Amino acid sequence: MDRARTQEQPPDERHHVVIVGAGFGGLYAARRLARDPGFRVTIIDKRNYHLFQPLLYQVATGSLSPGEIAAPIRSILRDRDNVRVIHATVTDLDPAGRRVIFKGGEARYDTLIAATGVKHSYFGNDRWRGRAPGLKTVEHALEIRQRIFSAFEAAELEPDPERRRTLLSFVVVGGGPTGVELAGALGELAHHTLVRDFRYIDTREARIVLVEGAAQVLPSYPPDLAAAAGGSLGRLGVEVLADTLVTDIGEDRVVLRHAGEERGMSAATVLWAAGVQASSFGRVLAERTGARLDQGGKVVVDADLSVPGCPGIFVIGDLAHYEHDGPALPGVAPVAVQQGRYVAGMLRRRRHGRRTRPFRYVDKGSMAVIGRNAAVAHIGPVHLHGFVAWLTWVVVHVAYLVEFGNKLRVMVQWAWSYFTRKRGVRLITSVPEASTEQARRMHR
Amino acid sequence: MDRARTQEQPPDERHHVVIVGAGFGGLYAARRLARDPGFRVTIIDKRNYHLFQPLLYQVATGSLSPGEIAAPIRSILRDRDNVRVIHATVTDLDPAGRRVIFKGGEARYDTLIAATGVKHSYFGNDRWRGRAPGLKTVEHALEIRQRIFSAFEAAELEPDPERRRTLLSFVVVGGGPTGVELAGALGELAHHTLVRDFRYIDTREARIVLVEGAAQVLPSYPPDLAAAAGGSLGRLGVEVLADTLVTDIGEDRVVLRHAGEERGMSAATVLWAAGVQASSFGRVLAERTGARLDQGGKVVVDADLSVPGCPGIFVIGDLAHYEHDGPALPGVAPVAVQQGRYVAGMLRRRRHGRRTRPFRYVDKGSMAVIGRNAAVAHIGPVHLHGFVAWLTWVVVHVAYLVEFGNKLRVMVQWAWSYFTRKRGVRLITSVPEASTEQARRMHR
Repeated sequence: MDRARTQEQPPDERHHVVIVGAGFGGLYAARRLARDPGFRVTIIDKRNYHLFQPLLYQVATGSLSPGEIAAPIRSILRDRDNVRVIHATVTDLDPAGRRVIFKGGEARYDTLIAATGVKHSYFGNDRWRGRAPGLKTVEHALEIRQRIFSAFEAAELEPDPERRRTLLSFVVVGGGPTGVELAGALGELAHHTLVRDFRYIDTREARIVLVEGAAQVLPSYPPDLAAAAGGSLGRLGVEVLADTLVTDIGEDRVVLRHAGEERGMSAATVLWAAGVQASSFGRVLAERTGARLDQGGKVVVDADLSVPGCPGIFVIGDLAHYEHDGPALPGVAPVAVQQGRYVAGMLRRRRHGRRTRPFRYVDKGSMAVIGRNAAVAHIGPVHLHGFVAWLTWVVVHVAYLVEFGNKLRVMVQWAWSYFTRKRGVRLITSVPEASTEQARRMHR
Repeated sequence: MDRARTQEQPPDERHHVVIVGAGFGGLYAARRLARDPGFRVTIIDKRNYHLFQPLLYQVATGSLSPGEIAAPIRSILRDRDNVRVIHATVTDLDPAGRRVIFKGGEARYDTLIAATGVKHSYFGNDRWRGRAPGLKTVEHALEIRQRIFSAFEAAELEPDPERRRTLLSFVVVGGGPTGVELAGALGELAHHTLVRDFRYIDTREARIVLVEGAAQVLPSYPPDLAAAAGGSLGRLGVEVLADTLVTDIGEDRVVLRHAGEERGMSAATVLWAAGVQASSFGRVLAERTGARLDQGGKVVVDADLSVPGCPGIFVIGDLAHYEHDGPALPGVAPVAVQQGRYVAGMLRRRRHGRRTRPFRYVDKGSMAVIGRNAAVAHIGPVHLHGFVAWLTWVVVHVAYLVEFGNKLRVMVQWAWSYFTRKRGVRLITSVPEASTEQARRMHR
């Protein structure tokens, strides 16, 4: 690592914005800045693709391929000539020198936008990580997919009834949108998609348990919609255990606590949808700038989303803790999109000497899908559930998919899945470690 | 492994055919046998999906997702009530007891059909395996995809011109159909798809070398078509080195021998499309039945595709060595399909007391695709190249895709790629080893 890997550039008068992270926040900021010839943009991501995370659970449950919900960052930004894409992992920050350091080089910035998002948190129980994978990356989704379908395959071959019940037991920890969507999709699999595929097991006997610590699933939703979601889950055979905590995850076993009492439950597949914490770049920011972190490691930002005391550094999306007339904004895609657009617009206004305003989030509503024809949505005072909510969900999600090719493909695939209830992407695959070795070698 | 994992079955009068391997041969045999109520079929595969191998190079080069060329075996056979699918790895055979032993259990057969195919051969140079991945499985394709796109990413960041040239050098070893298709797709990537995506490198400067030991690429094709293929490759910037052997593959380096002289060439990415050998079940068959193996480990079979001296054991597809008016049949999908259908049809005829005939392969022609609008095909005396051959190739391949959902999706995706030259599935991904651990644990 003794060579500087960034290439020499001719002197450039344009304002240089470096964006770390090409999720919703980073990408929307880059796209808006790209329209202004007064700026040049460098976007750095450790992945070479933007991931449409809200649909990741469909990869985990065999409905979509990773390629259908991801698009190469370069491909999205190919026509923005003032945007440069770097595929590298950012490791450090030098605010005095205005430098971002990544594996293999560094980039100097006039303005920095940090948008590295969140990862899972096991609340200090890191040994749960290998036993209950979460759902934040393509690799996680493929691992969950492999576990789910391997469990059904193993059950089909298992002569011992007790072990078979364990193999056919699935626990989803966390009843937020991700947990509800995962559990609902598992219910669809067991009660519809797979029913005719096996000869010795009845997949409808699979036990799917959704564990939520609060009194209802979707705790951030109004009670009527949460109840509707619970009803839809029940119709798909999902058992909802509310007011219940997971106190241990062992091999093929979870321990649950409800009303002060603990009991064990056998389950070969445990999926984690319970908590997140800020990505490690948050800690780098705190160490280098003195920024304050909240309990989840998110960076507490000012009204213009800048780090207090560092007017040239902004934090957006899931990594930011922004209090907005009350509690901090939730870590959802619309917040990240609006924050990305806001910072880009504000930088352009400032550069052109115009006045700027603090960030304000416009809540256009939220929604979660449980299964075919079953979703819940609240859009301001409007509460929807059932088919209408599901259709709204489909339209909104397809409209958001960033690359047009993906839109078309996902539409076709969804239409197909809808009418046939088939899930074609049930591959049990893995990639040998060798490939990661190779990647390391290339990026030496 | 002290428990028998197969489940007790009631006595059954039907003739039980066990098929090992759900490639083209095994699957077509199973489908034909499934129509006859006098049979029951068990198909065992270590994968849970059937793979459309002829399109695997499109996964490796970012055009298609694995899910678009693979379909769950259970899903293909779901409506065939007399077919049972077992997801397990076959490890041994007991011809006297008519038992197939797999990890976790065993299956008794009246007739056995072995259709486990081939894997790569590095001609005794097994240390080349990690340096030059081949293209036989989804995992291989994803590894190649990761290597190709990581090389372009690393080159974009590389300040040293010599190292950059190494990163942008690709060697494909073997000029058969797979090698030609891989090299052609690399040419499309470098000269069309990626041109506008990078800011510091010109992807058209990538060096793509196709190394072939014979005097022409596609050695099994007529010289006029081989020449046409060479011309198409040239137009995509692929350098064809005929009459050339690879004598060593090191880190970022290959050694080539041409006309008795050796020379080194720097290349970060080396892909292997040079040779195959029979899968290990061939050796099991030889040890347990005394079957004769050819040089590549393939099982030499009788005129009815049975193992000599073992009338109840048949070998089909790439695993079989069948001499047919001359040299052994090539390891291509149409041979496997016809052999699968033949054995199934013959078993049905025998059971119904009808006469059977030796297997005869009807060669409907072969084709290879080089790039957009460029392919070669010979169908008996008809030699096609260019757009017409390409269109023929598209129609034939789409028609063969086994599951209808995939047909539709691949059509849409191809149409999209054709008009835009985009390749949306350029994800650099890997799956942690943990998932394989989990699978092992479940199948204990």
